[in-house]
Amino acid sequence: MAVGKTPARIVVLGGGFGGAFTARRLLQRFRGDDSVEISLVNRENYFVFQPMLPEVAAGSIEPSQIANPLRRMLPGVNFYASEVESIDIERRRVQIYAGEGRHLRALPYDHLVVSLGTIVDLSSLPGLSEHSLALKNIGDAFYLRNHVIGCLEQADIETEEEHRRAFTTFVIVGGGFSGVETIGELQEMVELVLPHYRNIRREDVRFVLIHSQERILPEVVPGLGEYAAAELRSRGIEIRLNVKCKAATGEHVFLSDGTTIATRTLVSTVGNAPNPLLKTLPCPLARGRIITDAMLAVPGYAGVWALGDCAAVPMPDGTMYAPTAQNAIRQATTCADNIVATLRGGNRKPFVFGGLGKLASLGARSAVAEILGLRIKGFLAWWMWRTIYLMKLPGLERQIRVALDWTLDLIFQRNIVQLKVFRTEKVDRAHFEPGEAIVTQGELGNRFYIIERGSVEVVRHSPESAPMRLATLGAGEYFGEVALLRDLARTATVRALAPTDVVSLGRGDFAAFAQNLTMLKASFEETLGQRLSEAEVR
Amino acid sequence: MAVGKTPARIVVLGGGFGGAFTARRLLQRFRGDDSVEISLVNRENYFVFQPMLPEVAAGSIEPSQIANPLRRMLPGVNFYASEVESIDIERRRVQIYAGEGRHLRALPYDHLVVSLGTIVDLSSLPGLSEHSLALKNIGDAFYLRNHVIGCLEQADIETEEEHRRAFTTFVIVGGGFSGVETIGELQEMVELVLPHYRNIRREDVRFVLIHSQERILPEVVPGLGEYAAAELRSRGIEIRLNVKCKAATGEHVFLSDGTTIATRTLVSTVGNAPNPLLKTLPCPLARGRIITDAMLAVPGYAGVWALGDCAAVPMPDGTMYAPTAQNAIRQATTCADNIVATLRGGNRKPFVFGGLGKLASLGARSAVAEILGLRIKGFLAWWMWRTIYLMKLPGLERQIRVALDWTLDLIFQRNIVQLKVFRTEKVDRAHFEPGEAIVTQGELGNRFYIIERGSVEVVRHSPESAPMRLATLGAGEYFGEVALLRDLARTATVRALAPTDVVSLGRGDFAAFAQNLTMLKASFEETLGQRLSEAEVR
Repeated sequence: MAVGKTPARIVVLGGGFGGAFTARRLLQRFRGDDSVEISLVNRENYFVFQPMLPEVAAGSIEPSQIANPLRRMLPGVNFYASEVESIDIERRRVQIYAGEGRHLRALPYDHLVVSLGTIVDLSSLPGLSEHSLALKNIGDAFYLRNHVIGCLEQADIETEEEHRRAFTTFVIVGGGFSGVETIGELQEMVELVLPHYRNIRREDVRFVLIHSQERILPEVVPGLGEYAAAELRSRGIEIRLNVKCKAATGEHVFLSDGTTIATRTLVSTVGNAPNPLLKTLPCPLARGRIITDAMLAVPGYAGVWALGDCAAVPMPDGTMYAPTAQNAIRQATTCADNIVATLRGGNRKPFVFGGLGKLASLGARSAVAEILGLRIKGFLAWWMWRTIYLMKLPGLERQIRVALDWTLDLIFQRNIVQLKVFRTEKVDRAHFEPGEAIVTQGELGNRFYIIERGSVEVVRHSPESAPMRLATLGAGEYFGEVALLRDLARTATVRALAPTDVVSLGRGDFAAFAQNLTMLKASFEETLGQRLSEAEVR
Repeated sequence: MAVGKTPARIVVLGGGFGGAFTARRLLQRFRGDDSVEISLVNRENYFVFQPMLPEVAAGSIEPSQIANPLRRMLPGVNFYASEVESIDIERRRVQIYAGEGRHLRALPYDHLVVSLGTIVDLSSLPGLSEHSLALKNIGDAFYLRNHVIGCLEQADIETEEEHRRAFTTFVIVGGGFSGVETIGELQEMVELVLPHYRNIRREDVRFVLIHSQERILPEVVPGLGEYAAAELRSRGIEIRLNVKCKAATGEHVFLSDGTTIATRTLVSTVGNAPNPLLKTLPCPLARGRIITDAMLAVPGYAGVWALGDCAAVPMPDGTMYAPTAQNAIRQATTCADNIVATLRGGNRKPFVFGGLGKLASLGARSAVAEILGLRIKGFLAWWMWRTIYLMKLPGLERQIRVALDWTLDLIFQRNIVQLKVFRTEKVDRAHFEPGEAIVTQGELGNRFYIIERGSVEVVRHSPESAPMRLATLGAGEYFGEVALLRDLARTATVRALAPTDVVSLGRGDFAAFAQNLTMLKASFEETLGQRLSEAEVR
């Protein structure tokens, strides 16, 4: 590093196609140049190759094969496996959660690349958030696969006809790429493993695709969409067109045409919404997405860039680019090059891309493709799908592993192991030895505690005076609610006096459980006034 | 099947080495014989090859490779992926949970094979149940691997020295086979992936093995145990002998010598205890295990057999066989053959087995072995370990997949993808549409509900009269606690009157949360009397 010169700090938010590929391009362009420091923040420590999620859900690829560790993909980048707490454009810094969310850490930047993608928001449809499964990340695919196998296990031993049918009915909402690929792959998997479930009759297995429009795969030309629909129907999949999902419960899906389907498996591929963090920014949004200029810069905020699904990037004709992986990958190159041009001097270039084509796998060795004007369907399209996506998968190692998984899948039977790695008991219990702090004054409060056994002291520290003991609490008493109810940092330290067992709830759970129970809420409000006024005492 | 003849029903409980291999042997012996019906009950739908769990935890084998689906391993067996609720030896039947625990299903038997293994019970050590990780099944190995990678991610971005050290300190309790293999494999993994974590100093990484006896691996001859200890120490692993783990919290381990270690990772390989179901049986137990005769039959209870870790099988010298996989596999053959002899007529044979040898992998291509009197150590022993266990792994497909994983592990870097598939919000929310039953009279009660929005009616059905509405409840009110507090079937049906959102807690969580909170407990007891007396009204 040149003496006395601080390196330019580029902070990239998001490790999807947009963020990871921007960082990779920046690394290439700045190779050997230590006047630049590149950081990337992503909740997961890996980049996920989303086009292959339906195959992971169907068990033909192992989950970790389509996950590429960001540290390995981006050697030389400062990687933070963390969530972004806030973006402060005025002070040019980002705050992230460090140390398991115990404290915040600020990352100052000179250039900020926002590529936070989208989230799933189904709150407008009653019951969908609680009772539908998504397919956005590897955890979802892992869960879905194990859930489907679990349904077959239950159906096999269930004696009541009505429940058994619900276990073998699978409903997918959304007839776009994601929904079509998911239902195609899942149906193929169930078909392959069904011989192991001797008590399930083949005719009891139902796959239903719910689509709000006239035809599925509206992204491709009508001919291919119709081919896809005919192919799926020939495999027994029901396609319900011009109908929407209205509500869902743990046992039923309610449709806009007044019909109801009894099912234990509802997969929703709709409801993509902008990341709520974007709303906190001062820059203008279009349908929740950050408006950029053609160079991917955010107008009026020098050094702030946005791309991918969270950005509204103008096309030459004035409309916005679609939120696709193809666009994000190419925007990443443009964005990185424009940052280089800004730092080193040079011309920025606008983002212009016409798209190469569209591919949708239907499972069972069939697909539809629209590539460079050609329309291809069936086995050839499926073969192209596999070849093209395998080449796009970042990293030779992943490519080899996925190719091996595909090969083994041809030779061996599909796996029916149901991995239950989920915790079934939901309340956390914890043990503390005398002297240990359970909550520490000044930290962010994320949990609520009930003392099961033992005792604790509540102590207030202040810079001016000696620590003051506010209270001693014992079994059956609680603490920690003040920070949660009033969104404050911890107002005191709570320390174990004896070996102490506590049960605790996280913030969201506390809100759900405690604030809805009238009698509990009343009681909390009664003590809250008292504890808050104590907190103000110096 | 011969006309008019009911097949003999053999029910096997447990799908580990004992149960799965007994069922497999029975299938072989009764091939083509339809006078026998074999059933197997296991919570998971797979057999897990436990000797390779440490390698799964260390990421050199994918989790599903060492899981063999029981349906595929045992074609022709009636498989029940379920938990055993009770064993009724008087009435010769087993009750299992069916349909996601909604109702019980009885499996009558003529011969019962009990091979339920052991559970982990750490309740005598404060904090161990809550704060230590086990390594008994695939879920544990999956969790441990992701937890260790998560600790490295946190350590890399943690700014406070003290917390950072805790994230990179790994403590394993128990110096037997399981503990030694786990620490050896984990240390190798961390060593391999450390270059990706640029902010972690090598000297901050600590591995500590806690062992209560004089030397590790007490199962093998002293020379090999000392070799293993020297090998592990040469790789920087600390071994603390003659010391026990006394207590644990989320941040510290407390040892019997008065010292304390700050850590976020405590793996316990001790605390194996008998399955609590055995205590409910009328047969005599020895240290919690079912006493059998030399034929593996339970004396005094014709048709009941026991084997594996849950059985006390007498050796010719009067002591009991050790709870090892080798013994269980060979007991399975004896047990199956003796059942065949009982059904078809013939001589039962006693179980006699001297043991073939002992193998412990130390990771980093080293192991110790004691086979047929020979003592082998280092690379040769490690190569034998891999060869022997690969051959023992049931199923050619698993063997090929594991061999491939091992090969890829030689070529590529160890994976550092941290898969977070755990649910973070703990309270379940659910939505119900009008007319749907939330709880149904007569079913087992497993959940407690609070109404967040909407309204419900509480209705009692009785055979003699019309359904009677007992109450209408709205937002802020609760139901479902009667069945949980008094361990009863649901005393009424609760049905949604409007679109209704509820938050709910499972049985264990309800007990933890609600019964410990003094004010909540008092309130429940107040309404309980009233609701129970309503329940008795006919």
